[in-house]
Amino acid sequence: MAQSVDLNADMGEGFGRWRMGDDAALLEIVTSANIACGFHAGDPDVMHATMSNAVAHDVGIGAHPGFDDLKGFGRRKLPLPHSEIANAVVYQLGAAQAMARRAGGHVRHLKLHGALSNMAAVDHDLAKACYSAALAVDPDLVIMVLAATAMQDVVEDLGCRWAGEIFADRAYNDDATLVDRSLPGAVIHDAQVAGPRIAQMLKAGAIISESGKHIPCQIDTICLHGDTPGAVKMARGVRTHLEAEGIRIAKL
Amino acid sequence: MAQSVDLNADMGEGFGRWRMGDDAALLEIVTSANIACGFHAGDPDVMHATMSNAVAHDVGIGAHPGFDDLKGFGRRKLPLPHSEIANAVVYQLGAAQAMARRAGGHVRHLKLHGALSNMAAVDHDLAKACYSAALAVDPDLVIMVLAATAMQDVVEDLGCRWAGEIFADRAYNDDATLVDRSLPGAVIHDAQVAGPRIAQMLKAGAIISESGKHIPCQIDTICLHGDTPGAVKMARGVRTHLEAEGIRIAKL
Amino acid sequence: MAQSVDLNADMGEGFGRWRMGDDAALLEIVTSANIACGFHAGDPDVMHATMSNAVAHDVGIGAHPGFDDLKGFGRRKLPLPHSEIANAVVYQLGAAQAMARRAGGHVRHLKLHGALSNMAAVDHDLAKACYSAALAVDPDLVIMVLAATAMQDVVEDLGCRWAGEIFADRAYNDDATLVDRSLPGAVIHDAQVAGPRIAQMLKAGAIISESGKHIPCQIDTICLHGDTPGAVKMARGVRTHLEAEGIRIAKL
Amino acid sequence: MAQSVDLNADMGEGFGRWRMGDDAALLEIVTSANIACGFHAGDPDVMHATMSNAVAHDVGIGAHPGFDDLKGFGRRKLPLPHSEIANAVVYQLGAAQAMARRAGGHVRHLKLHGALSNMAAVDHDLAKACYSAALAVDPDLVIMVLAATAMQDVVEDLGCRWAGEIFADRAYNDDATLVDRSLPGAVIHDAQVAGPRIAQMLKAGAIISESGKHIPCQIDTICLHGDTPGAVKMARGVRTHLEAEGIRIAKL
Repeated sequence: MAQSVDLNADMGEGFGRWRMGDDAALLEIVTSANIACGFHAGDPDVMHATMSNAVAHDVGIGAHPGFDDLKGFGRRKLPLPHSEIANAVVYQLGAAQAMARRAGGHVRHLKLHGALSNMAAVDHDLAKACYSAALAVDPDLVIMVLAATAMQDVVEDLGCRWAGEIFADRAYNDDATLVDRSLPGAVIHDAQVAGPRIAQMLKAGAIISESGKHIPCQIDTICLHGDTPGAVKMARGVRTHLEAEGIRIAKL
Repeated sequence: MAQSVDLNADMGEGFGRWRMGDDAALLEIVTSANIACGFHAGDPDVMHATMSNAVAHDVGIGAHPGFDDLKGFGRRKLPLPHSEIANAVVYQLGAAQAMARRAGGHVRHLKLHGALSNMAAVDHDLAKACYSAALAVDPDLVIMVLAATAMQDVVEDLGCRWAGEIFADRAYNDDATLVDRSLPGAVIHDAQVAGPRIAQMLKAGAIISESGKHIPCQIDTICLHGDTPGAVKMARGVRTHLEAEGIRIAKL
Repeated sequence: MAQSVDLNADMGEGFGRWRMGDDAALLEIVTSANIACGFHAGDPDVMHATMSNAVAHDVGIGAHPGFDDLKGFGRRKLPLPHSEIANAVVYQLGAAQAMARRAGGHVRHLKLHGALSNMAAVDHDLAKACYSAALAVDPDLVIMVLAATAMQDVVEDLGCRWAGEIFADRAYNDDATLVDRSLPGAVIHDAQVAGPRIAQMLKAGAIISESGKHIPCQIDTICLHGDTPGAVKMARGVRTHLEAEGIRIAKL
Repeated sequence: MAQSVDLNADMGEGFGRWRMGDDAALLEIVTSANIACGFHAGDPDVMHATMSNAVAHDVGIGAHPGFDDLKGFGRRKLPLPHSEIANAVVYQLGAAQAMARRAGGHVRHLKLHGALSNMAAVDHDLAKACYSAALAVDPDLVIMVLAATAMQDVVEDLGCRWAGEIFADRAYNDDATLVDRSLPGAVIHDAQVAGPRIAQMLKAGAIISESGKHIPCQIDTICLHGDTPGAVKMARGVRTHLEAEGIRIAKL
């Protein structure tokens, strides 16, 4: 039986008259879209356009809530109480649900953005606060988690639907964390490297670290990027390679 | 059979550390709360607290979307395309729905706020854009409209659930518009005046203008205010008077 | 004696991680930069970078205040009292002055942005409210006005330093207003057309309308744009043409 | 010769239609006003009104820059690069300078707000980044520092004009830091306690900690609060007590 995997990317990251990323190109490549919800990027008009396009391409819609920090694009770690973060996640999820309905679709998954994701990946309590609040709004929501992190422990405990995610373009440490961007080799820019590497991980059912260590985990989706021309080419190359290896690309 | 009416008030109009209005007092008086959704006032934390309190008091929860204009409190008429306004209404409605669910309740009605309401009261196309977008998200939503305005025409055309609203403290012109605030007598500050006046309108099934003209209309709910100590006293006085006249105060 | 003219363009219109326009290319072409002040675009970091670059290129720094409307990029006409608009202009001017000093330069001119500019061009009272408030902060400020509009009347009455501006890429009506963008020929995309046209106006000392009417006025500066690759090429082409005609390009 | 001291309070902390604190009462009590600059609180209209009132009461005007965090009122520690914080301080200082000029006054001092102040009090590099950036805009600015903290070390190194500040209503630890608000006795609510305590510190030329330890320091100004009715009464009581002890209340 053919192995299959979902491909996801962040989208709808414009604001007002500003644009970011090549969403049109990505929608031809991925099967899931993580759509910004207006706090770190996006606004109701950008959301509507992005969700309408996702529906037209039969790409799965995800809410992608982040910190309420337009200036910092949600990449700054804000020291907020968990209850406040949970309120912000619920607010953005609800907004995304209604916008998706208006666009003829529905929110199927939720993925935390930026600094909020980084924080929740190492903080069980925070991950649980976010996820359980979101599931109280929609118990059928698929939670997209960074594979083999605290996020995964939490969704397993919650017993909810979830999907494990790895990055196409980032090297891993032996503890399944990402190699710091400042180190050589941390970011992979070549699809000829990234494609085979991802295929190998999918077949192994494990994250394979820089040192070669196998960290067994469930890999349901691969995160691609599209904010530079090089990134889109890379994303397309990874998809082509996976298909060439007989891996089916399919929505969650 | 006893006549009954709903009493509504705007709530949750704080932001961050700022507060506005005496929500605690109002929740003892009204049966419906129009809760700000974060664009002109309110934020996820204020919404959560306000909705939790509304649930505890068995007060009906309404989404109260306004223009995205915190500085102007949604009271400035923004010249935006209808599609953009509809997106903003849907976004806020969805956020409110999720927040209400988190608080153990649900959004039962929708009322437009401030300048957006003033504009929609005289613009069929705008009212229709807002209401039909909201109903696409939830067809069971009760739309609260200013009685005998373009809003009412639109909800009648749409065939949706709706409630007609009049103001407890404002004088009316002969065309059912409000007497301009700058004119003497436009705003009523005395419950001894407002109470009997509202009772009379309810019994007549009509707005009664300053000149005494009867404008027949469906009156389902009375708008009260609570942003000053005087306003809360007035709201309580109106309720007491209506009950004394045998009018039952009941949720929509 | 050689005729000379200033070339200006809007810059620093990024926000947070979003960018807009090719400021680096424009700084090689223009002699004056109108720098966004954080209300419709720009933020303290973008301002600092833009002003530092302007200083390095010996390009004159202008404050470019607009409406407090990031979502609408300052292009929506906001119905605000003149005193409130004047406060917003002064706030942004002061912020720009301090940021310019930090970058080793100073704010030499002021130009209103977007919808605020459009409104002030036809409203003497608004133009006067903005300009007199700004001049109270710095009486030596050069006010950049749309030539032959209400703005020019106001600066002449105020007796302040000012510069008259025309657009390189827009056709004019007989009353010196711009031909509406929706009409054919309203926007000029070809430097081979725009260059000779501007040279002709400079030599005539007049705006020349589409119909050929001459509207005598003082032309001190030409507005160029740089938000698309085509726009930069156009801007460069206009400069090259003017120089070829013996017109000296010089800072105000 | 009579000893004298300045009294300062934070003001202008409204935003849009929201108000906070009783500025009118405080302006009768203090000699210096720290005025919010639009990032954590305040807006151009609130600033104009507050500065005009300060000028009318001959109260010294201070810029009170904080983090760009309206929702958190500047009380959340944001992890930003020092250069970004310095840009934000300069931007706000410049805005305040222009607004003060429009109100017929001038910015004489600068005091950091909230979390930014707390962070700079224990971080020499941050304090230096903020203060040296501000002094590059105005070398004559008086920097108001928390006495006996890193802030004081920095202004002494910079050789600028400065004023040492203590709190009227907070207990001190032996290392001159404030007793944590969660501990009993940390906040003083009674002017009969606070007044004599401040007088004693002024006469001793030292912060006196809870344990009685004297930490010698220069005390130029006392920080009062006015955000509750009790706070205003307390502020008035402290002033009355100091005057009764023969201490002259005078602007910096």
